[in-house]
Amino acid sequence: METFFSFLEKRVADCSSLLCVGLDPHAADLPHANAEAALDFCLGLVRQTAPYAAAFKPNAAFFEQFGAEGWTVLKRVIEAVQEQSQRLGSLIPVILDAKRGDIASTAEAYARSAFITLQAHAITLSPYLGKDSVAPFLADPEKGAFLLCKTSNPGAADLQDLPVDGSGEPLYVAVARLARDWNTRNNIGLVVGATQPAAMARVREVAPELWFLAPGVGAQGGDLETALMAGLRRDGKGMLLPVSRALSREADPARAAARLRDRIIDIQYQMTKSGSK
Amino acid sequence: METFFSFLEKRVADCSSLLCVGLDPHAADLPHANAEAALDFCLGLVRQTAPYAAAFKPNAAFFEQFGAEGWTVLKRVIEAVQEQSQRLGSLIPVILDAKRGDIASTAEAYARSAFITLQAHAITLSPYLGKDSVAPFLADPEKGAFLLCKTSNPGAADLQDLPVDGSGEPLYVAVARLARDWNTRNNIGLVVGATQPAAMARVREVAPELWFLAPGVGAQGGDLETALMAGLRRDGKGMLLPVSRALSREADPARAAARLRDRIIDIQYQMTKSGSK
Repeated sequence: METFFSFLEKRVADCSSLLCVGLDPHAADLPHANAEAALDFCLGLVRQTAPYAAAFKPNAAFFEQFGAEGWTVLKRVIEAVQEQSQRLGSLIPVILDAKRGDIASTAEAYARSAFITLQAHAITLSPYLGKDSVAPFLADPEKGAFLLCKTSNPGAADLQDLPVDGSGEPLYVAVARLARDWNTRNNIGLVVGATQPAAMARVREVAPELWFLAPGVGAQGGDLETALMAGLRRDGKGMLLPVSRALSREADPARAAARLRDRIIDIQYQMTKSGSK
Repeated sequence: METFFSFLEKRVADCSSLLCVGLDPHAADLPHANAEAALDFCLGLVRQTAPYAAAFKPNAAFFEQFGAEGWTVLKRVIEAVQEQSQRLGSLIPVILDAKRGDIASTAEAYARSAFITLQAHAITLSPYLGKDSVAPFLADPEKGAFLLCKTSNPGAADLQDLPVDGSGEPLYVAVARLARDWNTRNNIGLVVGATQPAAMARVREVAPELWFLAPGVGAQGGDLETALMAGLRRDGKGMLLPVSRALSREADPARAAARLRDRIIDIQYQMTKSGSK
């Protein structure tokens, strides 16, 4: 049976890359703060980086800020990824970074929005409302969800680090366990920030098979090698590394993506050789 | 200084109502599952219930499912509330039920989307990412945020009920404390489900002054009187009761809203008279 992660693993094999290219049209990075400039920005980045992208990750906020026009642009950008997939003969999954989380029929409407209206392949979700808020996004095994687990921002400590259940284990470890238990269709992953390698290693212990979406390398200062050592699975996969400004602000985003992909391959090779995984 | 909650308190005084009319164009409740039918549905409900509405609460999911057209409808619906506010000479706040939650510049983009692009007055947020994810929504005191605290769905138990910090107190109580501490500008409230009165009473103890958005009365089976007893502040206010299908499915939504408002007034009066608050 095909699942979201079987599609992703196929793509990772096709392009030898763990890069997840973030499509974040920050107003400050655009020549004009409007939907048209956001479209140009994203189409350029998709075209230039597609050969090196294991996945693309548009962040809904940067489209929503332009209202209905932004929503039209978001749909068009996802279509552009589909066109690149056809050109390359290899399906590049689109992960809608939306961090939604609502209950029952509302969650169903969000799932419809992401997977049917927008044709994304996966979505990021908040775990705060529990299992029934996540279930509508998992109903179709070919669609996936990455649950927020341990994020890379300072405020992550406010809830995620609270020790729970008298065990002294932080909340984010409890979330990792829940995700592992809910992953009956091979379509749940976790968002685990790359800036805190010890936390990432702990989540990897609890969830040895799950894919991580691991933001924080680059702009937020996370070290690539340390993060990969902490988070990769034993098979040298299991981690997607989102990068956006580290590519979009380069004169040649394609070359920057290729270089970053190659650095990751080197680290994977060293780790496999040294048997540290 | 005017704040989101000073506006809300003024509106509550003007209409003697704690009703928050939910604008949830469920596909199943529309004659056709499209954006135009969603618009007609919402405009009708706004027009009929405005005199009895302390606030309106459109849920973003039911608009997003129609893509860019849905987003245009959402903006138009918020404008329709503004028109009713002018007609009635009393500002009716719009709470965008979006349950967003993201970090740094992304949170800023969501705040811009809700408060500037859409012109909503408040938003619902997930607390999972902590203080810096909430801060951009609180920067302007005239705009507000309701943090998810204790929700009314079964999955609420998965995270929200976990005992934290060795105190045995559940996570949702920790969230209530954080919200109370972060409320330096009188613009944070809490989402507390009306279906679990004991939990609501506990949150009220921890946060005696905060406004609650308390879904669950009506369709989800929460008892109105029990919920009000548990959640009202000592001044007989401090709770907004969202209702949607309980109004929209009635032949005469205006009359249903008036009746519900009057039942709440009766209960407030009985409570004040008996001194139970």
